[in-house]
Amino acid sequence: MSETNLQVLLASRPTGWVEEGNFNVVATPIPEPKEGEILVRNHYLSLDPYMRGRMNDTKSYAAPVAIGAVMVGGTVGEVVKSNHPGFKAGDKVVGFGGWQLFAISDGTMLQKVDDSKVALSAYLGVLGMPGVTAWYGLMDICEPKPGETVVVTAASGAVGSVVGQLAKIHGARAVGIAGGAEKCRYVVDELGFDACIDYKAGKLWADLKAAAPKGIDCLFENVGGEIFDMLLGRMNAFSRIAVCGLISQYNSEPYPMKNIGSVLINRIRMQGFIVSEHLPRWPAALKELGTEVAAGRIKYRESVAHGLRAAPAAFIGLLKGQNFGKQVVKLI
Amino acid sequence: MSETNLQVLLASRPTGWVEEGNFNVVATPIPEPKEGEILVRNHYLSLDPYMRGRMNDTKSYAAPVAIGAVMVGGTVGEVVKSNHPGFKAGDKVVGFGGWQLFAISDGTMLQKVDDSKVALSAYLGVLGMPGVTAWYGLMDICEPKPGETVVVTAASGAVGSVVGQLAKIHGARAVGIAGGAEKCRYVVDELGFDACIDYKAGKLWADLKAAAPKGIDCLFENVGGEIFDMLLGRMNAFSRIAVCGLISQYNSEPYPMKNIGSVLINRIRMQGFIVSEHLPRWPAALKELGTEVAAGRIKYRESVAHGLRAAPAAFIGLLKGQNFGKQVVKLI
Repeated sequence: MSETNLQVLLASRPTGWVEEGNFNVVATPIPEPKEGEILVRNHYLSLDPYMRGRMNDTKSYAAPVAIGAVMVGGTVGEVVKSNHPGFKAGDKVVGFGGWQLFAISDGTMLQKVDDSKVALSAYLGVLGMPGVTAWYGLMDICEPKPGETVVVTAASGAVGSVVGQLAKIHGARAVGIAGGAEKCRYVVDELGFDACIDYKAGKLWADLKAAAPKGIDCLFENVGGEIFDMLLGRMNAFSRIAVCGLISQYNSEPYPMKNIGSVLINRIRMQGFIVSEHLPRWPAALKELGTEVAAGRIKYRESVAHGLRAAPAAFIGLLKGQNFGKQVVKLI
Repeated sequence: MSETNLQVLLASRPTGWVEEGNFNVVATPIPEPKEGEILVRNHYLSLDPYMRGRMNDTKSYAAPVAIGAVMVGGTVGEVVKSNHPGFKAGDKVVGFGGWQLFAISDGTMLQKVDDSKVALSAYLGVLGMPGVTAWYGLMDICEPKPGETVVVTAASGAVGSVVGQLAKIHGARAVGIAGGAEKCRYVVDELGFDACIDYKAGKLWADLKAAAPKGIDCLFENVGGEIFDMLLGRMNAFSRIAVCGLISQYNSEPYPMKNIGSVLINRIRMQGFIVSEHLPRWPAALKELGTEVAAGRIKYRESVAHGLRAAPAAFIGLLKGQNFGKQVVKLI
């Protein structure tokens, strides 16, 4: 075991794009768990778009990370020492250990997981927050019916890839939007979407009419901005939009949307959501996802960065769409 | 009885603002009802914002009015001659007689009404489509809870005035937005809203913070555009938006909305709706509205134009917000 902890702290708040200078990497002593606490060695850190919002000091759905504090983040790891009756050394756990090698937990939001059948890192992706996000937004907000058309942006990402595969399993037509021919090939050839549009090809509207000839019944929106505005213009009557993320907007001025009138014209139901506010639905989500992953009907891919010091650059790459599948950082 | 019918036809499709030249007023013979048909003399014609959409030849929730056809519209009137077993001469009826003095109906969408306790014209407003629109959007989409803040735009209008009064009846704080001090006085002093903001006063944001200090839990949106965009910035977590109309957008290029991110940040549920698609809810709506109107707890006001030839100018005035309360045209 290394003799010190390593932590990534928020050094300053970004203006526009995140830069490596917004973070400090510091060595600190490994903390000692008090009564009721658990010391966890993190094996993988999850990098997710929501973290960009925590770097701001503006009103959002969660408190900002304080300057000088450890960046928040989901982790999987192994219990090193436990003074908590529910955990013992050697337990594999998923929780919110943050951007650091060692974390103290009081057991809140810490769950034991079984890594005998799936890789430990899957609990950060397809069987973790991103997978449940996909499931909740699709099943509880979009409610796709067989034969309907589901469109998902950031289709090759941790959330989008699950949305499209779940849509197919439930009988819908799945259309992805992704950046680049390689991601689109993956979405269609490996994940089994019916079609994928490469928005970088510069003919989104024509491609959209070809890929979703009967319009869009369900939009799972991860990106926002100009593409979202264009998609609004292809929504069908009584269609649904799950607003999961607006990653294109996190680092820039908001794109001026012109097609909000579609909400009225097409009687659209649009719903923003944060999956952590729907904990009662997690067991149903994880049950279906676990079954489908084990059966090979839901596939996933990871982008793995190596070592905690690589986390800031990997996070910046994620915000720019440079990852391919779920972005994690291997810490051990 | 006058010897001829008078009809307002759609002469041309407007580009931008509607002009009187978009209509033709023509005298035609009074039609003769065939077997199963009813001849109705219209007493009042309803003028409503949705009619602007019917003048366009673009995709919307209803078919456009054809060039040369009678403009569509709700009417109340009296049966003159009936070859239909469900109606007899002298019956007072509400239906969709269009912009004309006499209309033929086969009984579809024609309903007998009782004008012994309320004025016949009320069935075009507070006890008709606008009233049910207010009820449905507020009760079924916004679902206000006691103590919550409900904001409604076009607050002195046929729909908005009912929204605020219903919100008060259900224990919410009602804040209206209207154009001009006179309309705002009416909204607060006569209708009993808690506050009203005159958007023409030019300090909407400051006024909004004062009138809705705890933010907005329910927005009933009739107007769209810049005001809607600003209101999005004051929505609370888990708030609801009923998108009923976007009257400011019907005659112009869409306003570029910058605050759609609020849908995600505040987990807003936004729902566009057309009340005619929710006929099963009309009896419940009319029951509550009838009770409240009869008890004097829901008040209403009408703008009355006189004579069918005045309809085009009155309609243009409605689109510009020059009416005060429900706009009708008295035909007899």
